[in-house]
Amino acid sequence: MFSHPLGDGAELRLLEERHAAELFALADRNRARLRQWLAWVDGNTDPAHTAAYIRRSLAAFAQGGAAACGIWVDGAIAGAIDHHDLNASNRSVSIGYWLSEELQGRGLMTRAVRAMCARAFGELGLNRVEIRVAVGNAKSRAIPHRLGFREEGTLRQILWLYDHFVDEVVYGMLAGEWSMGQSTTR
Amino acid sequence: MFSHPLGDGAELRLLEERHAAELFALADRNRARLRQWLAWVDGNTDPAHTAAYIRRSLAAFAQGGAAACGIWVDGAIAGAIDHHDLNASNRSVSIGYWLSEELQGRGLMTRAVRAMCARAFGELGLNRVEIRVAVGNAKSRAIPHRLGFREEGTLRQILWLYDHFVDEVVYGMLAGEWSMGQSTTR
Amino acid sequence: MFSHPLGDGAELRLLEERHAAELFALADRNRARLRQWLAWVDGNTDPAHTAAYIRRSLAAFAQGGAAACGIWVDGAIAGAIDHHDLNASNRSVSIGYWLSEELQGRGLMTRAVRAMCARAFGELGLNRVEIRVAVGNAKSRAIPHRLGFREEGTLRQILWLYDHFVDEVVYGMLAGEWSMGQSTTR
Amino acid sequence: MFSHPLGDGAELRLLEERHAAELFALADRNRARLRQWLAWVDGNTDPAHTAAYIRRSLAAFAQGGAAACGIWVDGAIAGAIDHHDLNASNRSVSIGYWLSEELQGRGLMTRAVRAMCARAFGELGLNRVEIRVAVGNAKSRAIPHRLGFREEGTLRQILWLYDHFVDEVVYGMLAGEWSMGQSTTR
Amino acid sequence: MFSHPLGDGAELRLLEERHAAELFALADRNRARLRQWLAWVDGNTDPAHTAAYIRRSLAAFAQGGAAACGIWVDGAIAGAIDHHDLNASNRSVSIGYWLSEELQGRGLMTRAVRAMCARAFGELGLNRVEIRVAVGNAKSRAIPHRLGFREEGTLRQILWLYDHFVDEVVYGMLAGEWSMGQSTTR
Amino acid sequence: MFSHPLGDGAELRLLEERHAAELFALADRNRARLRQWLAWVDGNTDPAHTAAYIRRSLAAFAQGGAAACGIWVDGAIAGAIDHHDLNASNRSVSIGYWLSEELQGRGLMTRAVRAMCARAFGELGLNRVEIRVAVGNAKSRAIPHRLGFREEGTLRQILWLYDHFVDEVVYGMLAGEWSMGQSTTR
Repeated sequence: MFSHPLGDGAELRLLEERHAAELFALADRNRARLRQWLAWVDGNTDPAHTAAYIRRSLAAFAQGGAAACGIWVDGAIAGAIDHHDLNASNRSVSIGYWLSEELQGRGLMTRAVRAMCARAFGELGLNRVEIRVAVGNAKSRAIPHRLGFREEGTLRQILWLYDHFVDEVVYGMLAGEWSMGQSTTR
Repeated sequence: MFSHPLGDGAELRLLEERHAAELFALADRNRARLRQWLAWVDGNTDPAHTAAYIRRSLAAFAQGGAAACGIWVDGAIAGAIDHHDLNASNRSVSIGYWLSEELQGRGLMTRAVRAMCARAFGELGLNRVEIRVAVGNAKSRAIPHRLGFREEGTLRQILWLYDHFVDEVVYGMLAGEWSMGQSTTR
Repeated sequence: MFSHPLGDGAELRLLEERHAAELFALADRNRARLRQWLAWVDGNTDPAHTAAYIRRSLAAFAQGGAAACGIWVDGAIAGAIDHHDLNASNRSVSIGYWLSEELQGRGLMTRAVRAMCARAFGELGLNRVEIRVAVGNAKSRAIPHRLGFREEGTLRQILWLYDHFVDEVVYGMLAGEWSMGQSTTR
Repeated sequence: MFSHPLGDGAELRLLEERHAAELFALADRNRARLRQWLAWVDGNTDPAHTAAYIRRSLAAFAQGGAAACGIWVDGAIAGAIDHHDLNASNRSVSIGYWLSEELQGRGLMTRAVRAMCARAFGELGLNRVEIRVAVGNAKSRAIPHRLGFREEGTLRQILWLYDHFVDEVVYGMLAGEWSMGQSTTR
Repeated sequence: MFSHPLGDGAELRLLEERHAAELFALADRNRARLRQWLAWVDGNTDPAHTAAYIRRSLAAFAQGGAAACGIWVDGAIAGAIDHHDLNASNRSVSIGYWLSEELQGRGLMTRAVRAMCARAFGELGLNRVEIRVAVGNAKSRAIPHRLGFREEGTLRQILWLYDHFVDEVVYGMLAGEWSMGQSTTR
Repeated sequence: MFSHPLGDGAELRLLEERHAAELFALADRNRARLRQWLAWVDGNTDPAHTAAYIRRSLAAFAQGGAAACGIWVDGAIAGAIDHHDLNASNRSVSIGYWLSEELQGRGLMTRAVRAMCARAFGELGLNRVEIRVAVGNAKSRAIPHRLGFREEGTLRQILWLYDHFVDEVVYGMLAGEWSMGQSTTR
């Protein structure tokens, strides 16, 4: 019922537990590709795991600020994006996301990340948004790049990916940069 | 960020804790009128009380189905409506609501209740929606009446209102009746 | 050890977990008849389920007012009766009950309900006692009728009974009515 | 409502939170005498403290076996007795008790302890009942003595009593001894 | 990392969950002997049970004072000793212990108990240390005896040991006695 | 009782709640200097706050791996160091530390950090140790530098320090680098 329009028939909706089956099926179809860069994929082998993720996210939402959203395109789930690790003292939050393969290339995730930045800097009044991406995940790295995030460093062997460690690039955007960027270009 | 349009610049949004101050101020302005029929008004003397109500409601939302919404009109909170006492075994839920005085008479609450019925029977797949209103609260009773709810009985002295008991009328709507009503008239 | 005499060798005792096996066996023998009207019967397939019910009830008793009792006749459990959904603000409580078939027809349950009404209006100082019975359950409906409860309405499809919904009649008794009834007739 | 007769107008009742005010008042009147031997007296300065004790005891009762009872004489609280530290593996429990001064000398507490022993060895099927009394508390020591408990040792400085340590005598009764004693004398 | 030297290559370390496998294996090798006197042995059939004991002990340590330690000799676990049932009001604590068979006869456990007494009376500022040993466990009884504990009584049938009850001797040591003993002999 | 020697009369001890008063007093004396770079100082205005920090740390220790230690020099607390944010999946942990002014310049903290690295890579078997220091905190930055940590990036405005944001440098050390460094130089 509650949604945020992204244009072109796409919208963000807060994930509820009843969406678990459909979201799991989507992740399952994209399993081989997603597990290359995301550490939760191999452990997500049953809709109950997706339901548990949604419950945890809703509990965090209920305590303030965090939010796990589905991206719906023409009425079907196409991916997910979230606000996690919200730190109220330091006024910062992190964004994570993934998209089904057949919907890539339309700028959908760029619009979704932009909407989540607007939520962070606008509604939530935060000062810093962070995105971490594995060094080799070129497609995901393109998004913060395109939106003007600054590359701040590379944390070595920070993530265990089933059988090897990967390094992650940290991208940061500050409230002042965001509002300036919004007034200039868009 | 997440909302449901009600038309004419009105929309429902899931209440989050950061809305507590504005919602409390609205209830406070309508205090004298609201306390005639609602048992929570006298205990709601500080934004922290409203925040606690929102937190409890979000916790129930996180566990599935219940939902406390604000009604926004032209960007300002104008009232509230919720799904509470959701019973998954019996597939039933209750609706409660109140509206600021100056916005009454435009059919706003009728549209809000209709949206919450659509959520209950549609998204949530429930079978029964219940509304309880104090016998003497004519304005509130008009709404289930207008939407075709059936009056099912009067529970005597069921609610303690600060210094006296009041009787409440129980209104019920079933899934079959709702879908028929939607296809015929509206 | 703690009991309340009902006359003729019958007594109420607060249920403790060690009674679970005997109470389960009784419910199991009456299964076919009880499941016609009670929604918990099909899920109660093991003494552990009965033990869990008793534990929950004792926890509610410990928090004030609610109470699940066994009805003992000549030293053996013959049925159960409880105070549940105690609402301290509105000073109301509900009563539920069931009796083994071979002990029906002696007025046993009428005496048990009367004792629980006395507890509610006397010891607990409540204002309203409610009994809900499925419309078609004639034997159970006879009891509030006989004790002078008022029929206040019929909630449609309020209870899911394994494969169909049933309507329930709501009976209410107020403190004033009870004390008057006690002084007049009994 | 739930009680166990002790004869001569006396009875045991499970303590409920609504008894807190009356029980506190009784302990308060007996304060100077009780604090000579009991470590909880100085900290029990408000009915809320008594209520908290009752709540904790009811929670233990709900989990099985422990029980805090009031001793009522002619409808008024006269003292308290409990089963505490119930150990299900070792099948043992402890008894503690105190009585208002004006009711002493009638054998009331001896009957109450006997009833609690009967509950322990009978209903609860335990094997050992223990009573600990401060060495110098002659009146309290007389009770296990009279009932045939065996004196098993003296634990030195086991209890801190506001400003000094006291030694406690441990009395024990075993199931076999109890059933033999019951069949012989009474 | 954190340890307390006992001399001769022996040391006490606070047990952490990662020690569970090694500690379980040791108890398992000593099973036949340990189960003669200790009630937890038969239930400890998997490293997970040992891990659960360590977790519970660490939780008690975190709340103040209790402590479960391993005794390491030349880098391998040789036994265990703990502070349990710490009572802050009465300033008392109990000590329990067991040692692998091949390491007995070197005075190792006497040194470990002495260290735990020093912790109790020194760091923790307690007044009473208690050790309970089954009457027939001569080797274990020798230790408090050797350290000057006083034998205070025998609690009959206080412990259920799989298929029979055993009596336990209670040994007590007071702060005053300890400091005197330390200054005189050692 | 449990400690780890650092040489020259210095040692690490796991912090227990009874150390709270002494640790608070030390932090209080160093308040003006510490608050320049640490965000918890202004909120730590009472020994109870320090006690709460210790309790939280012990709870994390009890759940595995994290540890808050005091640095004792000649029997008095001189500073603190901890393992926090232990991530078992990614096998990483963070180190934080502070030292009283008069003890600086002796290499004490370098030895303490080295001991905590040894615990992380040795006992805990982790793969990555991270230290974050505010950009302008030259003394603290010298320590990971000296121990061979790699500077991996600068997270902008990541920390709110009472009235302004500060950037933090992230230093990382990997297990392979550590073991190589240990075998070469020291």
